[in-house]
Amino acid sequence: MSIVTGFETLDVRFETSAMLDGSDAMNPDPDYSAAYLRVTTDAGDGIEGHAFVFTIGRGNDVQVAAIDAVAHRVVGRDVEAVLDDLGGFWREFVHDSQLRWLGPEKGVMHMAIGAVVNAFWDLKAKRAGLPLWQLLSRMSPEELVSLVDFRYLTDALTPDEALDLLRAAAPGRAEREAELLASGYPGYTTTPGWLGYSDDKLRRLAREAVDEGFTQIKLKVGDRLEDDIRRLGIARETVGPGIRIAIDANQRWDRDQAIEWIHALAPFDLAWVEEPTSPDDVLAHAAIARAVAPIRIATGEHGMSRVLFKQLLQAEAASVVQIDSTRVAGVNENVAILLLAAKFGVPVCPHAGGVGLCEAVQHFSMFDFVAVSGSMHDRLIEYTTHLHEHFVAPAVIEGGRYRAPLTPGTGMEMLASSLHAHTVDAALLA
Amino acid sequence: MSIVTGFETLDVRFETSAMLDGSDAMNPDPDYSAAYLRVTTDAGDGIEGHAFVFTIGRGNDVQVAAIDAVAHRVVGRDVEAVLDDLGGFWREFVHDSQLRWLGPEKGVMHMAIGAVVNAFWDLKAKRAGLPLWQLLSRMSPEELVSLVDFRYLTDALTPDEALDLLRAAAPGRAEREAELLASGYPGYTTTPGWLGYSDDKLRRLAREAVDEGFTQIKLKVGDRLEDDIRRLGIARETVGPGIRIAIDANQRWDRDQAIEWIHALAPFDLAWVEEPTSPDDVLAHAAIARAVAPIRIATGEHGMSRVLFKQLLQAEAASVVQIDSTRVAGVNENVAILLLAAKFGVPVCPHAGGVGLCEAVQHFSMFDFVAVSGSMHDRLIEYTTHLHEHFVAPAVIEGGRYRAPLTPGTGMEMLASSLHAHTVDAALLA
Repeated sequence: MSIVTGFETLDVRFETSAMLDGSDAMNPDPDYSAAYLRVTTDAGDGIEGHAFVFTIGRGNDVQVAAIDAVAHRVVGRDVEAVLDDLGGFWREFVHDSQLRWLGPEKGVMHMAIGAVVNAFWDLKAKRAGLPLWQLLSRMSPEELVSLVDFRYLTDALTPDEALDLLRAAAPGRAEREAELLASGYPGYTTTPGWLGYSDDKLRRLAREAVDEGFTQIKLKVGDRLEDDIRRLGIARETVGPGIRIAIDANQRWDRDQAIEWIHALAPFDLAWVEEPTSPDDVLAHAAIARAVAPIRIATGEHGMSRVLFKQLLQAEAASVVQIDSTRVAGVNENVAILLLAAKFGVPVCPHAGGVGLCEAVQHFSMFDFVAVSGSMHDRLIEYTTHLHEHFVAPAVIEGGRYRAPLTPGTGMEMLASSLHAHTVDAALLA
Repeated sequence: MSIVTGFETLDVRFETSAMLDGSDAMNPDPDYSAAYLRVTTDAGDGIEGHAFVFTIGRGNDVQVAAIDAVAHRVVGRDVEAVLDDLGGFWREFVHDSQLRWLGPEKGVMHMAIGAVVNAFWDLKAKRAGLPLWQLLSRMSPEELVSLVDFRYLTDALTPDEALDLLRAAAPGRAEREAELLASGYPGYTTTPGWLGYSDDKLRRLAREAVDEGFTQIKLKVGDRLEDDIRRLGIARETVGPGIRIAIDANQRWDRDQAIEWIHALAPFDLAWVEEPTSPDDVLAHAAIARAVAPIRIATGEHGMSRVLFKQLLQAEAASVVQIDSTRVAGVNENVAILLLAAKFGVPVCPHAGGVGLCEAVQHFSMFDFVAVSGSMHDRLIEYTTHLHEHFVAPAVIEGGRYRAPLTPGTGMEMLASSLHAHTVDAALLA
């Protein structure tokens, strides 16, 4: 038996705004940041649980304060008891009535719970000597179902249905794992398409993306229609008809404006349109999806909880589900969302980029392929080039495909040297 | 001209859990708390802007940290410039792309922005020498529309439609204000119905409520059906057929369970059923509303933003809209929600109770009566007996009706002695 001896939170920030990397119609100057958590035990095995919540700058200190408040409550806990019942652990915090008031199940407090949950997943995977995707892929359908909180989901997915789904996908797990280890998982790149880049830079990066083997690129849109038309023209001309081009409006439009704008961009053969409006607006997404069909609507990187994803699926408001590794309350909730997407037959194409999101979210797609949907069809993981060098196990992309990571853990651990160099004192920033 | 010279945040907590006041099926032991803000200027008029976010205990320190982070950014600002354009001030913070990432527009960060916005409303009302409801009621339709952020609302309500609505309600403002000053606004009481109270206490408090002039009481339900049936029987027997009884499940049910449970309680003639399931689940609320019609579904105290309220109205998922004074981003967003409700012809019956919520939220109903819906029909403000004594201008209820407050400000200012006595150091609570 071992116990949690302590934790440390860190306010980690990168000055990405100086480069216009990550610039889009809603986020002109993000400073990619991580509200970082490190949990220690007395096991004497040198293993620590690392996790973070990704933010884009201001407010990262508030996210740190929330993680602090939750993490305080795990000091002294029996580590094995937590790791043996991570479903119960999730419910203990998400159902805590007083913390729940601050959401419920959304925003800063929900993401803080996610960081604490994920730190224990990191411990569990490292103790097992497995990357998270493999740890999850080797759990039984019963164990996986026990991770999920079905409260508010049963009108769309019951525990029995989830079990049936996972059992149906159990045959072939080993073959799919072997396939993944041999040839990886498809990625797509957003690197060419940031709104702040010049036309020349867009053209050059789009060409490089194709040369590198990517089969899809993504462009940020939504600021000025004439710019979008010009940039999409450049991109389509550069990559040719065989490469898919998705666009991302980052919530810039109202419902009717979205429909008009998407119709104007339709001639460029769009792989999907991402975040056309408020991420919380299920009904508007559904109306947009109906109006622009067969163009697909994608959303989810700001999806606050499994309850929102459930509704997006029920309303046929999203035909591409974009999970994010730190927006919801940790691994458990992303497992729930993968199950919901599988139930509705909708592909999951995770949001990544920022700092550490590629490293973290790839595990969910790989687990999905091995043990949930069993398919890579129409599924890709986002990729951007930034900041991988700060991680113990940087995401590796080859020929446009993510290589399956083999380092034990969730992928969220940053290098000690990077943590040291980029931790700030928020009081000095104010 | 005056400038903002500083601010103070306080972690204010009351040990209400010891009394089981406020106990319901989801919140067995709330400790009513306020993440409190006090903004000072160099105007030399002795006027301070006070505001708070209501929480129920743990996490109040995180809410304070978030208010701190936002409030830091207003020090040094030109007070008059802010007060002259509170619509622009709201957008400056809610649209701040980096802070927005932490929601967007929901949870801890959104409520923190609300506290800062509300502190300036408190300053504005005090400088005008008016209670908030009167300040708002005397603004022109154009001024009111300028307060509202119509982003994501235009598929349901455009600025022009809002203007038409307000102009249509302009005649009669003076008469309605006089009516309000003469006879107040109807309230209903939740005091008899807390889940932790004994049957005898329920019976006694229900009788007292009727004796005091209330025409509606509310009971907490959703823990055990047989208890709910017994308690509703006691309540109905005690108050007779002429008094309305609403019930509140505090999000306890899944969709189909809600429908069954409500059908089982229907014989008790329910005024409304409140929060049957997740507050974020528009589709489930709509399905429940259809299944149990004509019983009315009420929700909103956990409504995170105007975008959620818009959808609840569009989907006919709520036939009673329950705004909360500190859940959304301040006065401006509640004005938006009142306008949406008026557009859809749905009555607003605010959530109150906790600490200071009666004092704060009454202003919105009174403004709604004078200048928006122009009606008190089917509209009541929740009332509970707790903690009014801590406020500079405690809510006053007489004969089951709220007396219109005349003290200048938003009603959110607590007594200095109460702040002193109930401010805690969160580090010592951990």
